Amino acid sequence: MSIINSLQWRYAVKRMTGQKVEQEKVNVVLEAARQAASSIGLQPFSVIVVKNEELRKQIAPLAYNQPQITECSHLLIFAAWTDMSEAQVEEYIQQIAVERGVPREALQGFKDTAWGAVAGKTPEQRFEWFARQAYISFGTAIAAAAYEKIDSCPMEGFNGPALDTLLGLDKKNLRSVTLLALGHRDEVNDKLAGAAKVRRAKEKFIIEL
Amino acid sequence: MSIINSLQWRYAVKRMTGQKVEQEKVNVVLEAARQAASSIGLQPFSVIVVKNEELRKQIAPLAYNQPQITECSHLLIFAAWTDMSEAQVEEYIQQIAVERGVPREALQGFKDTAWGAVAGKTPEQRFEWFARQAYISFGTAIAAAAYEKIDSCPMEGFNGPALDTLLGLDKKNLRSVTLLALGHRDEVNDKLAGAAKVRRAKEKFIIEL
Repeated sequence: MSIINSLQWRYAVKRMTGQKVEQEKVNVVLEAARQAASSIGLQPFSVIVVKNEELRKQIAPLAYNQPQITECSHLLIFAAWTDMSEAQVEEYIQQIAVERGVPREALQGFKDTAWGAVAGKTPEQRFEWFARQAYISFGTAIAAAAYEKIDSCPMEGFNGPALDTLLGLDKKNLRSVTLLALGHRDEVNDKLAGAAKVRRAKEKFIIEL
Repeated sequence: MSIINSLQWRYAVKRMTGQKVEQEKVNVVLEAARQAASSIGLQPFSVIVVKNEELRKQIAPLAYNQPQITECSHLLIFAAWTDMSEAQVEEYIQQIAVERGVPREALQGFKDTAWGAVAGKTPEQRFEWFARQAYISFGTAIAAAAYEKIDSCPMEGFNGPALDTLLGLDKKNLRSVTLLALGHRDEVNDKLAGAAKVRRAKEKFIIEL
């Protein structure tokens, strides 16, 4: 199947069957999220995977009781880091030195650029930048799920601060920014199953210069 | 090639050969951007495609003279809408009515939800939400380019306001948020060609609950 056919097959599934998605397939989505592009390679976010059904029942009311929270197989939470220390940047630089077999000193210029980009922003700018990096990964994960024929629902409608408190993410310097429920579409009860995908016409979406 | 292999093959290409990418292949990336997931299906952003070499020469100094701007084949600009009117939401609702063959009245609840989500935010919140939608599309486009074996470089380092003025995007109520240069990697001059991709280890990137 082409990547376009996969994206056309995908829709934001509103009702799921509760059936599990094989862990191996979920791992492809998680690996796509991890391999996704990220500014300076910093990956200033984490992905939380919630399989636990009891926990998902507690999360549901924080997401307007949307049924996908409990009917999905795996609930992925994309959480941006609330901050990044110089030590964390240094850890990344050290990892590059080891994995590319280059001397640490040769990476000083890159380190200065990376840390400068982090430290040169206000906390609000920094968080928004980190959130956008999480969204690049989110978009990549949605595409990968579609390509693997895993149904999904991207979900932005939830009480982030309450979710962060419930899961203790705030204590880990994480702030949830968006969710991706993975599961199986319930073709009987989801009235959007089979509905035409509506997208702005090419000539309106694209501007050629 | 699997989607994971494609993402591993991809890297942020720093030097390109100037060789053109077939328009047909670029169209796959643009179509992926258009088909990408978008909150409530609103797609509050546009993609500008710059092929014109003279124009790219003028853009280069606004992006720290990074060589990809002029060495790429097609420069994609993801620009979030600076606002959305009720008329634009209504246009979308009308399109759904036509394309899904449902009466306009049956979509009133959905219209209220959609317009409520737009109107209920401050201008800053709304713009950031729109920018994040552009980033979902950006992440999807990057993945699609990799899958099609088109080299690319995601670029956030540029002077957005100056670019918007140069291209007249400000007059179209658009604000550029990120760039994607498409082209061919220059394996001779790009010192990162062939370098190992460095990503945070799975056990650090993923939190299982």
